[in-house]
Amino acid sequence: MPWLRNFIQLSATFTRRGLPPPPRKPSAIFGPPPSIAQLLQHFSSAARSTDPGLGPTKGDEKPRVVVLGSGWAGCRLIKDIDTKAYDIVCVSPRNHMVFTPLLASTCVGTLEFRSVAEPIGRIQPAISTEPGSYFFLANCTGVDFQNHQIQCQTVTEGAKTVDPWNFKIAYDKLVIASGAQASTFGIKGANEHAIFLREVHHAQEIRRKLLLNLMLSDVPGISDEEKRRLLHCVVVGGGPTGVEFSGELSDFIQKDVHKRYSHVKDYIHVTLVEANEILSSFDDRLRKYAIKQLTKSGVRLVRGIVKDVQSDKIILSDDTDIPYGVLVWSTGVGPSPFVNDLEVPKAPGGRIGIDEWLRIPSVQDVFAIGDCSGFLESTGRPVLPALAQVAERQGKYLAKLLNRLGKAGGGRADAAKDMDFGDQFVYRHLGSMATIGRYKALVDLRKSKEAKGLALAGFVSWFIWRSAYLTRVISWRNRFYVAINWLTTFVFGRDISRI
Amino acid sequence: MPWLRNFIQLSATFTRRGLPPPPRKPSAIFGPPPSIAQLLQHFSSAARSTDPGLGPTKGDEKPRVVVLGSGWAGCRLIKDIDTKAYDIVCVSPRNHMVFTPLLASTCVGTLEFRSVAEPIGRIQPAISTEPGSYFFLANCTGVDFQNHQIQCQTVTEGAKTVDPWNFKIAYDKLVIASGAQASTFGIKGANEHAIFLREVHHAQEIRRKLLLNLMLSDVPGISDEEKRRLLHCVVVGGGPTGVEFSGELSDFIQKDVHKRYSHVKDYIHVTLVEANEILSSFDDRLRKYAIKQLTKSGVRLVRGIVKDVQSDKIILSDDTDIPYGVLVWSTGVGPSPFVNDLEVPKAPGGRIGIDEWLRIPSVQDVFAIGDCSGFLESTGRPVLPALAQVAERQGKYLAKLLNRLGKAGGGRADAAKDMDFGDQFVYRHLGSMATIGRYKALVDLRKSKEAKGLALAGFVSWFIWRSAYLTRVISWRNRFYVAINWLTTFVFGRDISRI
Repeated sequence: MPWLRNFIQLSATFTRRGLPPPPRKPSAIFGPPPSIAQLLQHFSSAARSTDPGLGPTKGDEKPRVVVLGSGWAGCRLIKDIDTKAYDIVCVSPRNHMVFTPLLASTCVGTLEFRSVAEPIGRIQPAISTEPGSYFFLANCTGVDFQNHQIQCQTVTEGAKTVDPWNFKIAYDKLVIASGAQASTFGIKGANEHAIFLREVHHAQEIRRKLLLNLMLSDVPGISDEEKRRLLHCVVVGGGPTGVEFSGELSDFIQKDVHKRYSHVKDYIHVTLVEANEILSSFDDRLRKYAIKQLTKSGVRLVRGIVKDVQSDKIILSDDTDIPYGVLVWSTGVGPSPFVNDLEVPKAPGGRIGIDEWLRIPSVQDVFAIGDCSGFLESTGRPVLPALAQVAERQGKYLAKLLNRLGKAGGGRADAAKDMDFGDQFVYRHLGSMATIGRYKALVDLRKSKEAKGLALAGFVSWFIWRSAYLTRVISWRNRFYVAINWLTTFVFGRDISRI
Repeated sequence: MPWLRNFIQLSATFTRRGLPPPPRKPSAIFGPPPSIAQLLQHFSSAARSTDPGLGPTKGDEKPRVVVLGSGWAGCRLIKDIDTKAYDIVCVSPRNHMVFTPLLASTCVGTLEFRSVAEPIGRIQPAISTEPGSYFFLANCTGVDFQNHQIQCQTVTEGAKTVDPWNFKIAYDKLVIASGAQASTFGIKGANEHAIFLREVHHAQEIRRKLLLNLMLSDVPGISDEEKRRLLHCVVVGGGPTGVEFSGELSDFIQKDVHKRYSHVKDYIHVTLVEANEILSSFDDRLRKYAIKQLTKSGVRLVRGIVKDVQSDKIILSDDTDIPYGVLVWSTGVGPSPFVNDLEVPKAPGGRIGIDEWLRIPSVQDVFAIGDCSGFLESTGRPVLPALAQVAERQGKYLAKLLNRLGKAGGGRADAAKDMDFGDQFVYRHLGSMATIGRYKALVDLRKSKEAKGLALAGFVSWFIWRSAYLTRVISWRNRFYVAINWLTTFVFGRDISRI
């Protein structure tokens, strides 16, 4: 209990010295030793709070919506919720939302990391200004549906002097939007050696490693073999993320490596490994176009199944070794341990099972949205794909639903039991997009895989893609920075400082 | 020897399979399994290079200038050197120069990290394009003055699969610009617990820690005592760096913390601890103005000597405890272990002793510039302060000197023995500047501490300060980003994503 220990130490210190009355004004110049105690008088007051968390809301307080997670689903909900009707508490291990469709661009410096990260406080200012609204940097460790209460533990990574701290939060409404986690299909070594591409720190790690390997391979005495290994970037998984990253990488190689690392430029290569087809959800013609473009820009496409990942090579099911310097893994997502441990009926794929109003039907006042949730089989609906646009639409829908309930007096715990929840959630697919580097992108505007519709490729779709994303970046600050980053990358090239 | 191990593994793999002839063109679509070997044919060739480094330059090559370090001194030299007369090899543990006067601004997000880091390849493109010029991410581990040769070891932090690699570089001219290191005066615990403010990763650590503590202190159940500790930022050392950081911090608190962390805004404080006077090199009136402004913006000034640093408090020599959440240390610099180990006559303060032409007089073709060097007592000159402007002027002077020698045929090792080195290096102090937050800065234009001259304070000097720095940031890209950062900080506030 370091909190307690610190408290005792502090009390002892200040009690020992005896404290003068607080000075009226801070002293304007350096004082003699006694003034130190005066200047530090703010450490003297108050006993330790005994509140172990946030208790149930009282009649004079607003009802409390607790949101777990800060991804597309949670953030859209947080943004749209009516802060006059509710207090919002967001619990997440990161204090920002990641604009995932642009994350691949940050790995090579086309965009900067902060341009794709939006602080929750900017998405919903109430969490930092309203007395009853909070953001907690913590993980939810358990839900007590019966008592309308969750258990949390603070994230203290980076803090040497504080241990994780447990606390409870009572909720009136609970929204689980904690997302999924990268799936490795149990392949040995993948978790240890591969880098995923889901958070900003993953992109930072890829960028640092790539720049390190570029520099290491230039050192005298390194064999050609080892240079090729260090500079071999292997991407496992041919979905939009894998393809976009491969495209960005090959663009980085052709534009920046050739100019800034001309000694080793002939040693760097990109290989994309996929067990089936790349971009399997896209229109056939678009897929062929993507394969042609990627191959043209130097990306090697390998069809294979990875069976083992070692620190410097992957091994395919036919025993082919593929040595690598950087290994990026993007083979899709699966349920997180938190979702696995939740004792509620599950949807196919192990997701939290929800009904047509995104509720967990077996309990009161709990909803689940985004990648962590899926329609129960009893609804007769298919589980929706783990896409940003699904999550965002669900967050938007649920905010509206909760706002309506709140206005009708159903905001409190158990108050909406017999109320009408209104229209069901209906998802309409607006199309898929994937960039493939060098001012080229695919835009598939078909409503589903079987449907017919417009399918674009090339410069026009690159422009649409960039514009579409630019207007979806949430704050004006980040829209501005994304535009500025694109401009400076175009004019000056990408930044190669390894910081 | 992982290089060798990898080589053997790779050779074995590819020898076992037997290699088809390389395909003429990469296949445009996914091929059947045999094509994997084809696609990976680039791993098949070449034996391990036996070259353990760069040997002495030959008659048909340009003479080689080896520069140790990438700070103000080294980078100015690298920028100005005549790449037609010399090949340049830069050896440094970081691949960028840090624009140190603006580093304090990045700790709270007034500026972004990359805006103050300039990649060496942008400062001198020849190191990435000329066949004989290089940048090596490495530390110099020893100098063999007799044989004109240095020993280096690669920096492999972040690379799990490569061990540090040793190599040698022969030089025609050697410039030691490896800088100094933060000095803790042997105070127990300072190295473990304090954060220095000399590299970009220090600023990143401060920013992450500050944001973490702001969030941790908002968690329910944390005592008031512990909140005050977590949010107490203590700065030790009242030189320009400590004062600038304190000023930035109090500006961040008043502008951003009050808005974005209003729940805990009353718990955050800044204390600046200094054993003597703050800004001791500045004009008396300016110093008083600085004290007034800092106090007004809430910085507590404490005169005291730190005798012990623990994980959550510092202890002064009069036994006062000062609990802290973030501890920043900026009490000046001292010689690095590398400089201590160099067997050459030293200047006062343990720096490498140099003569009026910045040479190490006891050996041939070796120069030392920047914070690592100082005039030998025999020159009758004082050791210059460890300032960016001294280092930058020395780099500029030495580049000119070397260019002149190169043109006159004195570029090779031992070729300049009896040549005239021209004018001695003379340092003229152009004045000192320090910002104290909130659009206020001090500009001391006196030539020395005793001289008379213009001394400015307030908004006008803040403007001069900002403009002066803006034009000294080396590339247009970074000038542009610094301006954009200042603009967005002004319009939108600082970014608080903890990434």
